[in-house]
Amino acid sequence: MANVRIALAQIDTCVGDLEANTQAVLEWSRRAAAAGADLVAFPEMTVTGYPIEDLALRASFRRGAEAALQATAALLEAEGLGGLVVVVGSVGEELRSAPDGSPARPTNQAVVLHHGQVQARYDKHHLPNYGVFDEYRIFAAGTRACVLEVCGRRVGLVICEDIWQDGGPVAAMDDADIALLVVINGSPFEEGKGHLRTELAARRAHEVGAPVAYVNMVGGQDDLVFDGGSFVVGADGTLLARAPQFVEHLLMWDLADDAQPPARGELAPELEVDEEIYRAVQTGLAGYIRKNGFRSVVLGLSGGIDSALVAAISADAIGGSHVVGVSMPSRYSSEHSKDDAADLAKRLGADYRIQPIKPMVDVFEAELGLEGVAAENLQARVRGVILMGLSNAEGHLVLATGNKSELAVGYSTIYGDAVGGYAPLKDVDKSRVWALARWRNNAALDAGELPPIPESSITKPPSAELRPDQVDQDSLPPYDLLDEVLDAYVENAEGRAELLARGFDPEIVEKVLSLVDRAEWKRRQYPLGPKVTGLAFGRDRRLPITSLWREP
Amino acid sequence: MANVRIALAQIDTCVGDLEANTQAVLEWSRRAAAAGADLVAFPEMTVTGYPIEDLALRASFRRGAEAALQATAALLEAEGLGGLVVVVGSVGEELRSAPDGSPARPTNQAVVLHHGQVQARYDKHHLPNYGVFDEYRIFAAGTRACVLEVCGRRVGLVICEDIWQDGGPVAAMDDADIALLVVINGSPFEEGKGHLRTELAARRAHEVGAPVAYVNMVGGQDDLVFDGGSFVVGADGTLLARAPQFVEHLLMWDLADDAQPPARGELAPELEVDEEIYRAVQTGLAGYIRKNGFRSVVLGLSGGIDSALVAAISADAIGGSHVVGVSMPSRYSSEHSKDDAADLAKRLGADYRIQPIKPMVDVFEAELGLEGVAAENLQARVRGVILMGLSNAEGHLVLATGNKSELAVGYSTIYGDAVGGYAPLKDVDKSRVWALARWRNNAALDAGELPPIPESSITKPPSAELRPDQVDQDSLPPYDLLDEVLDAYVENAEGRAELLARGFDPEIVEKVLSLVDRAEWKRRQYPLGPKVTGLAFGRDRRLPITSLWREP
Repeated sequence: MANVRIALAQIDTCVGDLEANTQAVLEWSRRAAAAGADLVAFPEMTVTGYPIEDLALRASFRRGAEAALQATAALLEAEGLGGLVVVVGSVGEELRSAPDGSPARPTNQAVVLHHGQVQARYDKHHLPNYGVFDEYRIFAAGTRACVLEVCGRRVGLVICEDIWQDGGPVAAMDDADIALLVVINGSPFEEGKGHLRTELAARRAHEVGAPVAYVNMVGGQDDLVFDGGSFVVGADGTLLARAPQFVEHLLMWDLADDAQPPARGELAPELEVDEEIYRAVQTGLAGYIRKNGFRSVVLGLSGGIDSALVAAISADAIGGSHVVGVSMPSRYSSEHSKDDAADLAKRLGADYRIQPIKPMVDVFEAELGLEGVAAENLQARVRGVILMGLSNAEGHLVLATGNKSELAVGYSTIYGDAVGGYAPLKDVDKSRVWALARWRNNAALDAGELPPIPESSITKPPSAELRPDQVDQDSLPPYDLLDEVLDAYVENAEGRAELLARGFDPEIVEKVLSLVDRAEWKRRQYPLGPKVTGLAFGRDRRLPITSLWREP
Repeated sequence: MANVRIALAQIDTCVGDLEANTQAVLEWSRRAAAAGADLVAFPEMTVTGYPIEDLALRASFRRGAEAALQATAALLEAEGLGGLVVVVGSVGEELRSAPDGSPARPTNQAVVLHHGQVQARYDKHHLPNYGVFDEYRIFAAGTRACVLEVCGRRVGLVICEDIWQDGGPVAAMDDADIALLVVINGSPFEEGKGHLRTELAARRAHEVGAPVAYVNMVGGQDDLVFDGGSFVVGADGTLLARAPQFVEHLLMWDLADDAQPPARGELAPELEVDEEIYRAVQTGLAGYIRKNGFRSVVLGLSGGIDSALVAAISADAIGGSHVVGVSMPSRYSSEHSKDDAADLAKRLGADYRIQPIKPMVDVFEAELGLEGVAAENLQARVRGVILMGLSNAEGHLVLATGNKSELAVGYSTIYGDAVGGYAPLKDVDKSRVWALARWRNNAALDAGELPPIPESSITKPPSAELRPDQVDQDSLPPYDLLDEVLDAYVENAEGRAELLARGFDPEIVEKVLSLVDRAEWKRRQYPLGPKVTGLAFGRDRRLPITSLWREP
């Protein structure tokens, strides 16, 4: 029996862009066929993009996806690619009523195209509805397993969460005598998740007695980042092939005859943790900019580490010449801050501008007579108005530069430095901000290039410069300690008792908890409104931020 | 056999305020006992408030709720109220692993307190996870029915969604020979939902062959409004008692001996639609202000209908003297606008201030050289900075005055007039804005009072006054037509084909759809950030906005 050649097409789709997504299916199917593939598998919800949230509930969207899918099958056949088995993801057109009487919903499908036809459809069984996932809200669960025949070999097909839960379709494969299990995925990046995925797949491979081929999407979509990192593990759990992370890629692997030892394919090296997170942030930002139709970004450059890192990541994502950095000094800004901002912009080749805020702040203060926190916030809000004015006039996406530690403790002004369409460091704590900056500079040195971030931005004590001689540690614990407490309290949802049992200083715990609780509350208060008539805009209308789908 | 006296305690809880919520249980149990009740039933999740979102997943919160519940049982007994059967809602302390392998979650419980003990617990079976509901995300489903014995009669107990779905615990009651079904609810207000509830309860009463007593919570919580309107229907579907909407209330009703005809209780009159929606908006706003610890609000008064209606509702919610209205005229503001704003403030007894925006706009324009839309937005943003400055300095909650039609088509400035912690008209379309204003003025006339809203604010053509002689209908279809199209496209998720089939003008359809799609996209872009490490702040951390729970 001949080998069966498998291609895993790790591509970057965009929610709603049915035309571009199906064009990509055609293009990557051509490449797979040219590489001799018998089967090419694309990520979860290829045709629609992922995650589609409440677009799933709009009939005209589902009709459009189904039409695009059928057209793709016909085009593959017309191009002479009908013999290639093409596995794509999409949304089912029809609604299914749920057994518990809740509203009817469509299914999350894997669709097999062959000889110009839809040869098979598989409906995802396990619908994750925790963390970032809302699938039980929008999809009905499938109930049947799916086994294809490809070149005389039996190939099982499941979708993402189906392998994360015991039982269900994978357990059914145990008796199905399959030669390969193909899993199509939309698995968001998390630090260290790569190992979880391969260990899990190894376990399932053992259960079904066959290799597992895992294809994942890549790219930024709204507030999620998909890292790719597609792979194949053998029936004994050995890693046989792995694609690189954060790039589109075609991973080829041969399913050998049972009598042969398993084939090995490309094995992309693993990234170390700071590089992996830097690339994740960069990928998320690049995707958000492109998919939302922007070509450039604008941000305030304070001379501090957060805005320096955001500028460096932006330059890596879209090129320094597409980055507009605005120095907006106040009466409290130090000379070294302005120098560091200018130096950074020069290193990045960014469009650098200086717009002092004093004239505006003076007239607001004269008119309104504000002092204390109200006056501090005013400075941040004048900067927000300046950045939004430049955005409206010149079309740049505004980036907010706050990091996760600051946001967690409320060290941020609503409608001030929080202004922006995207906050690249929202999920990066301050300790990691420094680590990423050092990693990026070292990577430049290793490549014989000028480090993008001025050394003094990394080494100086952090300050918001909203009043004379202010530094962050006037009001916050040291960041390494703060980040440890935040990790336990916010990430791990530990309570005060658990934090004290870990040995944290009770005063620090009290301080951090009260700051976080207040900041959480303030952040969630803006902006909001009630649901009164039927639907309001808010929790009851969850649409993707980035969607290129338009009502046909 | 004697009558069994039932009390339905329609109270206003606050998420996280375990102390106040259990104090309310004690206070209303005293009232129920004083009125001779044998059983008092409180709304869903009484102890914790509702909806608690991801607070359900925090162990220290669940421990706190359980401790408050146990303390309440002991206090009831100590006060001599141990003989009263008290049914309250709470969150279960323990996590249950879900059969499908998804993360372990607690249950949504009805807890029966009697003689100082927890006599029974019932776990909600049907977990709504559509529209505004996220319960499958945070709760595990119960599997057992619950029947109590009260004064020798069998009383079935279920929670909210359990009666909205066929099957489950209500079907099990069919064989349980119950004399009464008690349903505790957190059912958000929607226009016309009162009739849906009573019709549904009548159907369930028929199925179980017994009356249904339905107690609902009341008050505003985050972006939801609960209208109360608790009621009792007989086994034959007759409405036997009904509480008023939008107020805390104790509805008493006697479960008669089987040999007697069913007793009738108080029947509060129904509200007509404009009054009902006005009261819903007022209740939502009043709850948001109070539960977030504010005592006053600040808003811009333009002289137009939206800000006039918001000011009138605010005055009804917290008293006119707690409303700060700021006229912020620009070079384009008409004299009649300023006069109408002053007249409104006087009628309401509001704190009225005038702060021209020209000095700030002039200096921004001189410094930045903005024109066109960027210059229009600048005016709105300067107003936002003024309102936030007053909020920071004086502690008022900022109200945004935009209505649903404007927000839907993007007739709003991000970080400008969209600034605010609460937007009372977010879910009220422009046609309804006029209707509510007219209803409120007529209600004043009927009561022999001065109408709060100047007539010219109702009758003049709407204008944003951001450029000379601008009116809304320069760029928008007439509002009555716009609102019809929005209702079909946004509320009912109809596609272009369905809209054209309804006979709408194709040009209008094209215009409205492109405006809505663009506005939706713009609105969702601000603000946002990526999930990269573990949890980020965003979709994966859904906490209530208003929660008085603090880490113990």
